[in-house]
Amino acid sequence: MTIPPLSQIAQNMRPSPIRELFKVIGRPGMISFAGGLPSPQVFPVREFAECSSILQRDGATLLQYGASEGYPPLTEWLREATGQHLRRSITPEELLVTSGSQQALDLVGRALLDPGDVVVVEAPTYPGAIHALRNVGARFAAVPCDGEGMQVDRLRDVVEAAEKQTGRWPKLIYTIPDFSNPSGACMSLARRRQLVDTARELGIPVFEDDPYGRLRYLGEPVPALASLDGASGSVLYASSFSKILAPGVRVAWIVGPPRLIRALVMLRQGEDLCTPVVTQGLVAEYCRRGLLERHLPRILDHYRVKRDAMQAELRRALSAGGAEWYEPEGGFFFWLRLPGRDSQAVFDRAIEEKVAFLPGRAFYPGDSEQVGQVRGGREFARLAFTFAEPDQIAEGCRRLAKVLD
Amino acid sequence: MTIPPLSQIAQNMRPSPIRELFKVIGRPGMISFAGGLPSPQVFPVREFAECSSILQRDGATLLQYGASEGYPPLTEWLREATGQHLRRSITPEELLVTSGSQQALDLVGRALLDPGDVVVVEAPTYPGAIHALRNVGARFAAVPCDGEGMQVDRLRDVVEAAEKQTGRWPKLIYTIPDFSNPSGACMSLARRRQLVDTARELGIPVFEDDPYGRLRYLGEPVPALASLDGASGSVLYASSFSKILAPGVRVAWIVGPPRLIRALVMLRQGEDLCTPVVTQGLVAEYCRRGLLERHLPRILDHYRVKRDAMQAELRRALSAGGAEWYEPEGGFFFWLRLPGRDSQAVFDRAIEEKVAFLPGRAFYPGDSEQVGQVRGGREFARLAFTFAEPDQIAEGCRRLAKVLD
Repeated sequence: MTIPPLSQIAQNMRPSPIRELFKVIGRPGMISFAGGLPSPQVFPVREFAECSSILQRDGATLLQYGASEGYPPLTEWLREATGQHLRRSITPEELLVTSGSQQALDLVGRALLDPGDVVVVEAPTYPGAIHALRNVGARFAAVPCDGEGMQVDRLRDVVEAAEKQTGRWPKLIYTIPDFSNPSGACMSLARRRQLVDTARELGIPVFEDDPYGRLRYLGEPVPALASLDGASGSVLYASSFSKILAPGVRVAWIVGPPRLIRALVMLRQGEDLCTPVVTQGLVAEYCRRGLLERHLPRILDHYRVKRDAMQAELRRALSAGGAEWYEPEGGFFFWLRLPGRDSQAVFDRAIEEKVAFLPGRAFYPGDSEQVGQVRGGREFARLAFTFAEPDQIAEGCRRLAKVLD
Repeated sequence: MTIPPLSQIAQNMRPSPIRELFKVIGRPGMISFAGGLPSPQVFPVREFAECSSILQRDGATLLQYGASEGYPPLTEWLREATGQHLRRSITPEELLVTSGSQQALDLVGRALLDPGDVVVVEAPTYPGAIHALRNVGARFAAVPCDGEGMQVDRLRDVVEAAEKQTGRWPKLIYTIPDFSNPSGACMSLARRRQLVDTARELGIPVFEDDPYGRLRYLGEPVPALASLDGASGSVLYASSFSKILAPGVRVAWIVGPPRLIRALVMLRQGEDLCTPVVTQGLVAEYCRRGLLERHLPRILDHYRVKRDAMQAELRRALSAGGAEWYEPEGGFFFWLRLPGRDSQAVFDRAIEEKVAFLPGRAFYPGDSEQVGQVRGGREFARLAFTFAEPDQIAEGCRRLAKVLD
């Protein structure tokens, strides 16, 4: 027997750029700045394991089917914490627990987009966002970024050009305003206000993806987009435990208007019913005990050292060769411009020298799914500073300098 | 701001029939045969909680991102166990761990179906399957069932009629051959052979959903469809820990041809990346310790008593009134025919008498998504015997008899 032809969506899939590189990245002696992985050194293994007492105490609930909206002790904690962050109270009808913020975006894409619809992303942007939206047949228009994030004054032109080219008004704007993956940039307050205002005028909802916001090593926090749009509900806010606790729990959440949250809940009843109650219970217990707030300073201290090391080593080893970057104040990444170089070719040589990063092309939509001039990334490289040790970071930067020489 | 119009898919969503009934089912004093929930009395709370020692022992792995295919100690155990069941060896490329078998069907639908494509289901069938496939815009043709499951000799006619009506050859056949939800029927061996042969001749893959196969209280096991199709790969086999361990872990798996599994892996990298490694680790540890095999007889003993009680009470209280049913040998459900009655009207009266079930209409596709004559269920009621206690089962059946009088 043969499986019938795959669906249009499945035929258009492309393998994850990171997975494609796994084989080479895993070679012995390789120093990898490629994967955006948290350091296992900051996983609170003992404290989290101790929370498993809840599996005994509340086992009959945690082992049963749960509400698609989320496990109530967790949703209550999240409403309180996110309410403080967004400076308003959040009702139960506005919040949904998801299996990673990846699923939050997947569900929003399914709820809002028909095949061929247009999403505005930043250039560069998170490949997993492109993947989720490609899974529902989206096309992509892009707004360039600089050290202050999305160049919002170009947003209206990008939207109007996309409408002219496709006959469709874009349905969604996707952004990571705090320490973007891959650019590391934090959107300035002025641009945030401008983005919220412009999006409201254009009538396009904004998906604010905020996995890194709590990971600030320098400077002052900037308010979330979702805290600037008042009660208008133009911003969907998603965050996650992946970077502040552990990705292996796959617990995240999204806050949005009740009508949309209801649609997401119904969609996921056909997708996976609910996020495992077992992991929601463990995370809720971890938060209830106050362990998250006690743990965050340890994470910040750990990553700050690594960020500082990479900043110093890049300056020492690479800046003479013309490499340029904006210094990230938080998050996981440096986004290097290597003027005149093809970062894919640099990557191929770097692998021989046993240092890995991600070439910039991975952070742009594919040619066939672009609307307008999105092309880019050729001169860029993403370096994650979270996973390698400080001495590896120094050695890795030296190897990179050798390649670039 | 307003959220833009929902996508076509989202506009066609319908609320889960069970959730719609939750409010009335939850009233005080209600005896519910409505939800297909495992009994919390058979959750191995203590043994499962003890397995959390793996969170300490292997924490750095369990808290990190995991492979989309699954946590290796779990996939190895599943390959071995499913290989024994299907009587062949299963390679790593043939298996994917999913978040419930709900997600396995969701991913298969995304991989194979374009909007408007046709899926052949049993009539009646599992509402969650309709929901997952509706989420990718499927239409439904149906083959009637009796006490031996799908009437396979009508399959070819249904497929050809669907093709004539829609211009599309059906892309998938969905079946629960062991103790179907809702019919409780176990497909006979003769029909299984006939289904595998016919599906191969028609060139349509079969999705064999097997959450209940291990829950047999009477009679002899019948081989899985996937064990009858040799190496042809025409049957995708999915099973789950939801009914034999606990639904709250949301761990299931699918076995299929490597080319399709690869497509599912890529799709889910945009959907949710992977099933939580934490729950996969806990389930793997539970299996590794041999606890599942020791626990299964306890589940069987518990449910057998309830099944027997419902069979006896239905016979005592309802058969005189003309109700008819096939006696289930396993699974969770009785599927009652109430000749000449509208089960929705019976439900409304039953609620007043404080006994709940699910009206049969919920187990059929909606009118607008049907291909051919799928309509049915009006005279039928699904009664789950797993959740209520034996004395509640007796009292519930008496109340039902009163309503039907």
